[in-house]
Amino acid sequence: MLVKSQLKLIRSLQQKKYRNQHGLFFVEGKKTVEELLVSNLEPYKIYCSDAEAFEVSEGIVERVTSAELKQMSCLKNPPGVLGVFSFKKKSEIDFSDWMLALDDVRDPGNLGTIIRLCDWFGITTIICSKNTVDCYNPKVLQATMGSIARVNIHYTDLSNFLQDATIPIYGAFMNGASVYKANLPEKGILVMGNEGKGISKEIGELISQEISIPQFGNKTTESLNVATATAILLNEVRRD
Amino acid sequence: MLVKSQLKLIRSLQQKKYRNQHGLFFVEGKKTVEELLVSNLEPYKIYCSDAEAFEVSEGIVERVTSAELKQMSCLKNPPGVLGVFSFKKKSEIDFSDWMLALDDVRDPGNLGTIIRLCDWFGITTIICSKNTVDCYNPKVLQATMGSIARVNIHYTDLSNFLQDATIPIYGAFMNGASVYKANLPEKGILVMGNEGKGISKEIGELISQEISIPQFGNKTTESLNVATATAILLNEVRRD
Repeated sequence: MLVKSQLKLIRSLQQKKYRNQHGLFFVEGKKTVEELLVSNLEPYKIYCSDAEAFEVSEGIVERVTSAELKQMSCLKNPPGVLGVFSFKKKSEIDFSDWMLALDDVRDPGNLGTIIRLCDWFGITTIICSKNTVDCYNPKVLQATMGSIARVNIHYTDLSNFLQDATIPIYGAFMNGASVYKANLPEKGILVMGNEGKGISKEIGELISQEISIPQFGNKTTESLNVATATAILLNEVRRD
Repeated sequence: MLVKSQLKLIRSLQQKKYRNQHGLFFVEGKKTVEELLVSNLEPYKIYCSDAEAFEVSEGIVERVTSAELKQMSCLKNPPGVLGVFSFKKKSEIDFSDWMLALDDVRDPGNLGTIIRLCDWFGITTIICSKNTVDCYNPKVLQATMGSIARVNIHYTDLSNFLQDATIPIYGAFMNGASVYKANLPEKGILVMGNEGKGISKEIGELISQEISIPQFGNKTTESLNVATATAILLNEVRRD
């Protein structure tokens, strides 16, 4: 039986303010919990409503009822496992490879998909503007799966960061030059903008190369979603 | 004031069965409604709760209250405009260019994103297996925006369709050959599989070239989401 204070703590982690206060976040689902357990993330507590065993140190796993799990969960149909972990330790920013920078990406599903894409393409650093959605938001984590453990995400003043950067800065714009002809270098920063507004004027002024994904269909088509555009541009960064 | 039978009709269109029975579907939001109005789609009725005018023939636009609109809508916060349209007329399948085939894509958001991507890349034909989510599903339409008007979508027995096809058939597999080395032809069929299971065994046997998107990160990474994988592969199809 779960102590009331624990239940209250976990529920509070649905909010960014309390996640930051405690330095904790949670993920749901056995598969993701297992992936984080074998990563460099430090588990705080694993709550299980079913009989499945976890091979982790004593005291970490706690049996709870389905009703208790439901009270902690953000999901309508919570899976049988919820894992609470400490925030990743801050790492140095690695300027020896491409990195991604996000200028106010607000949709949790988009950020989650983008983290997963970075993991796929071996991009280990994401720099987020302070108004980008929190990477420990439960909806972000649902979309990232275990990738959160393998990508380093830094929240900072993006404008200051780019001003100090000494590697080339590329940005995705509707009217940029075709990425197919961009002759992308070995390392650089790729900036992606907000869902509705794109890259802000302030950040735009710091970008050395404006690139775009050529459009082949009817020109009335909306811009691509930021996650799908990121998929295409990261593929362009990595392909020969 | 809306007649009760009309309200009942629109509400019923949230279900595939009734959409097929009436040959009607609806979209929400002024921008999408306007995009469909200038397309080849035939409007049945436009419901507006606000004072904005639509330049369409008399009798098509009907003023309703916000409460009535809310009763018709699928959304928590319905926009002020809902448009009901007739299904697109069936067109001939165009074998002179690339087309996309979907083997049981079930998530409405994924199908919506894929339709929008096809529109972007000028892929005008999508062949869907019978178990692929219905393209007139309101959640699909939310993600496609106006693209539904510009892409022709056919539901058919995918296995029979591929058996009869005379252009090359490519399929996305985790262990396929790198798409970067695939030397893609001028025309072909790109098959994408179900979210959980990928391409089925039956369909897999009809595929001549198995391709994949190279993975650069940690090899424990999950596969890419079907919509982001489609984004990358359609980009590969269209780039020089």
